Amino acid sequence: MMREFQLLEHVYASNQSLSPNVQIPPGDDLAQILIGNPSLLAGVDQLVEGRHFNLEVTPLALIGRKAITRSLSDVAAMAGKPLASLIAITLPPDFGEDRATSLFDAMRATAEEFNCPLIGGDIAFHEDPSHAMVCAVTVLATPSRKKAITRDGAHVGDHVYVTGTLGGTLLPNGLGHHLTFTPRIAEALALQSQLGDALHAMIDISDGLGRDASHIATQSEVRIEFDVQAIPCRAGISWQDAVSGGEDYELCFTASGDVPSCVGDTLVTRMGVVVPMDDQASEGTPNVVFRDGDDLIPGDELGWQHES
Amino acid sequence: MMREFQLLEHVYASNQSLSPNVQIPPGDDLAQILIGNPSLLAGVDQLVEGRHFNLEVTPLALIGRKAITRSLSDVAAMAGKPLASLIAITLPPDFGEDRATSLFDAMRATAEEFNCPLIGGDIAFHEDPSHAMVCAVTVLATPSRKKAITRDGAHVGDHVYVTGTLGGTLLPNGLGHHLTFTPRIAEALALQSQLGDALHAMIDISDGLGRDASHIATQSEVRIEFDVQAIPCRAGISWQDAVSGGEDYELCFTASGDVPSCVGDTLVTRMGVVVPMDDQASEGTPNVVFRDGDDLIPGDELGWQHES
Repeated sequence: MMREFQLLEHVYASNQSLSPNVQIPPGDDLAQILIGNPSLLAGVDQLVEGRHFNLEVTPLALIGRKAITRSLSDVAAMAGKPLASLIAITLPPDFGEDRATSLFDAMRATAEEFNCPLIGGDIAFHEDPSHAMVCAVTVLATPSRKKAITRDGAHVGDHVYVTGTLGGTLLPNGLGHHLTFTPRIAEALALQSQLGDALHAMIDISDGLGRDASHIATQSEVRIEFDVQAIPCRAGISWQDAVSGGEDYELCFTASGDVPSCVGDTLVTRMGVVVPMDDQASEGTPNVVFRDGDDLIPGDELGWQHES
Repeated sequence: MMREFQLLEHVYASNQSLSPNVQIPPGDDLAQILIGNPSLLAGVDQLVEGRHFNLEVTPLALIGRKAITRSLSDVAAMAGKPLASLIAITLPPDFGEDRATSLFDAMRATAEEFNCPLIGGDIAFHEDPSHAMVCAVTVLATPSRKKAITRDGAHVGDHVYVTGTLGGTLLPNGLGHHLTFTPRIAEALALQSQLGDALHAMIDISDGLGRDASHIATQSEVRIEFDVQAIPCRAGISWQDAVSGGEDYELCFTASGDVPSCVGDTLVTRMGVVVPMDDQASEGTPNVVFRDGDDLIPGDELGWQHES
């Protein structure tokens, strides 16, 4: 087994395109980066074997890719520009040098592809061969405007939009869109540029449209009403499955005024409206509801739990 | 079991002293921080059950503390000022709400104690109850001068110093200094302030003085010769054990000119000298050696492997 230090050395040596703003590259106690912008966005996400992927059926290149793109989807959700990434990974002791190298190479290459170079890492090995692989990815980014687009800015009267199509991201064999998606960074920056102050709130859809829209509704103190006919479902997927499945990594946002029907090659669909909290009579009504003709279906009947 | 979202909410709610430079607090896709200084230091480290601590004998408060202080020791090693921290943690499914809360509270409180507030987190649960707990901590900091103190600045003729005492950090029962140490942030800042440009290279001792000094030697392209009589061993510990044990979390640094014999209440001991690489005849000689009277003991005979 290659030692941990050498594995990291190998990964960093492949980091050919570290930008000049990396003043101290990986290999010291910490890396140092020059920030062009005085504010920084930072978040962490993790990918756990058995929970987020099946190690037996998933190519290592796709596991590595997803570890990075999942965190970059959060950058897109705030209309941020990727700056740098840091990876902590724990592997079973018998994981093997070739496989560890494939995994890190995939992470490094994906991070570079999205201009988010790997500037720090830690590798540890479990004592027990039966223990699960865990990857934690920290992503740093800069907001494209003074303050990033948050979840708490939805206004009553906004329309609610989604990029791309929803549902069916996890195939029965464990593969699918959840491993291969492209984080919507370019789309988010284009939307912010085109809509300016009319872009009010945004989130990426990781837990399902229903649950993620509920975060916007809760934090903005509003209610969101979706038109089930307008939800852009992937072929063969019911709207109920499309809004509850999760791992779409599309953007859900609210905006006033005119919104284009696509950004680049990516579809943008209007599928809901922001209404006041007190529009609904009872206290217990969830803050996301689905209108199907004359029927109004509370979000919490669709298998996800609202957080309000 | 409290849900993951609620656990994080609980932790963030305790974050009473988030400074005004946190422009978007935890709870959105990413947090946003205003950087007072245009450069940023960033690194990640992880604590793995069975590898770095024994869950059965170690109080959760000390596990949480060590997860944070271990990363802060890297900030000290670069003479950085803590800015913010992000935590990713994976727990066994049956870990229990009270214990999870105790763990996070300890991490949050320790991060606050060192002015390194928790600005992001992710919590996941293993599917399998036998799987190990893993904590990954990302730390962000700012260099106290334009560029942080790195490992590659040692000059021939420098003396080599260490803070505090070494060895015996892991007691037979699993407890000890490795869980309770204070990261040497204040000492590093004081040394940088007092020594200025005469402070040339620095590292924190996590893998043992021998191995960590070897990182300085390799990256500075020099050799380091220690005087075994001068090594400040903890009571009852041989110099051989003191230099190979690890988890001291003291600072090892090289400097020219006068160096004070203490900073604050912390002892500073001169115990070695930086010599040229070619002072030793053979190619294979390790770049860290220990002088014991007339004997010169190669570092690699002491049970740690040099990285040159």
